[in-house]
Amino acid sequence: MELIDEVLQSLKERMPERRYHHIVGVMAMSRRLAERYNIPVEKAELAAVFHDIVKFAEDDWLESVVLKSGTDPLVLSFHSELWHAPAGAYVAKHEYGVEDEDVLHAITYHTTGRAGMSDLEKIIYMADLIEPTRTFTGVEFLREKAFEDLDEGMLACVRHTIAFLVEKTARIYPLTLECYNELIKRKEK
Amino acid sequence: MELIDEVLQSLKERMPERRYHHIVGVMAMSRRLAERYNIPVEKAELAAVFHDIVKFAEDDWLESVVLKSGTDPLVLSFHSELWHAPAGAYVAKHEYGVEDEDVLHAITYHTTGRAGMSDLEKIIYMADLIEPTRTFTGVEFLREKAFEDLDEGMLACVRHTIAFLVEKTARIYPLTLECYNELIKRKEK
Repeated sequence: MELIDEVLQSLKERMPERRYHHIVGVMAMSRRLAERYNIPVEKAELAAVFHDIVKFAEDDWLESVVLKSGTDPLVLSFHSELWHAPAGAYVAKHEYGVEDEDVLHAITYHTTGRAGMSDLEKIIYMADLIEPTRTFTGVEFLREKAFEDLDEGMLACVRHTIAFLVEKTARIYPLTLECYNELIKRKEK
Repeated sequence: MELIDEVLQSLKERMPERRYHHIVGVMAMSRRLAERYNIPVEKAELAAVFHDIVKFAEDDWLESVVLKSGTDPLVLSFHSELWHAPAGAYVAKHEYGVEDEDVLHAITYHTTGRAGMSDLEKIIYMADLIEPTRTFTGVEFLREKAFEDLDEGMLACVRHTIAFLVEKTARIYPLTLECYNELIKRKEK
């Protein structure tokens, strides 16, 4: 059995159905985006299947994994919802043998974004937000933007995320701001 | 003639009337906020009268003043609307002899905010946004918050500013994010 199928099977057994459908949705959406932007589809699928691999782990365990992952420990002073992303990349590498740095970065930064994202990183970030089971107001606009232009789509998505966080008076991770600011600066040039 | 009256007279002669009314409005609002939060009124008036002292200077000149002011030159890679604040503090100190560090910081950070703001800094930041000539949607809510509680008021104001910038897809200065994040973190404790 291929790695992707193996992981998918194990996720199906461990996750609530709704969450499993989200994973499958992210895989489908990132495949479509990869085709649109000429990125290897197998990389997109690999990053997608692993992106929430430790989403439901305990905070204590996630914290210990983040600490050994080499990620900036600043993330630990922010909401624990951010921890599963770098911890997931660590698990993908050390438990499943994923070696591709671009795939590992796409997992690490799929929740916060960052400045200097690769095309694959952008695709996974967007796919997580706009996959078919998402139904929030404005998701159709984000889907259109995502297929129109990679940077415009990414900017629309991160802008949506920041607006959402400000609306609920939640803290914003500095990498997310750097991601947003960089995309605007690039447009202005 | 006292320094404040002297500066006010000179602003009246040099500024469009609407802008002059803004300065007078910021002075009035910061006086009221200073009384509300037991901060010396004369400090608030001093910071207020100087906050836009170089608002209409040329970008080249502002850039040169920012560079010698000791402010983080990162601000020069952001919109020039941010430059008049640190440049104004420099002018207040070196041309008008203002020595009070708290007053100078209140001028420096009145546009961006920052983490670790003093009470005076918060008052000037808020007064700039909510003074009586401001009429934007939501300003009444911000005025209420500003008099209810200093940190709640400040958070409401910086939250408004970030939402406004995201709405127009404009970059957000990192200090503004640090200010916002810190106020939320303090609430969560």
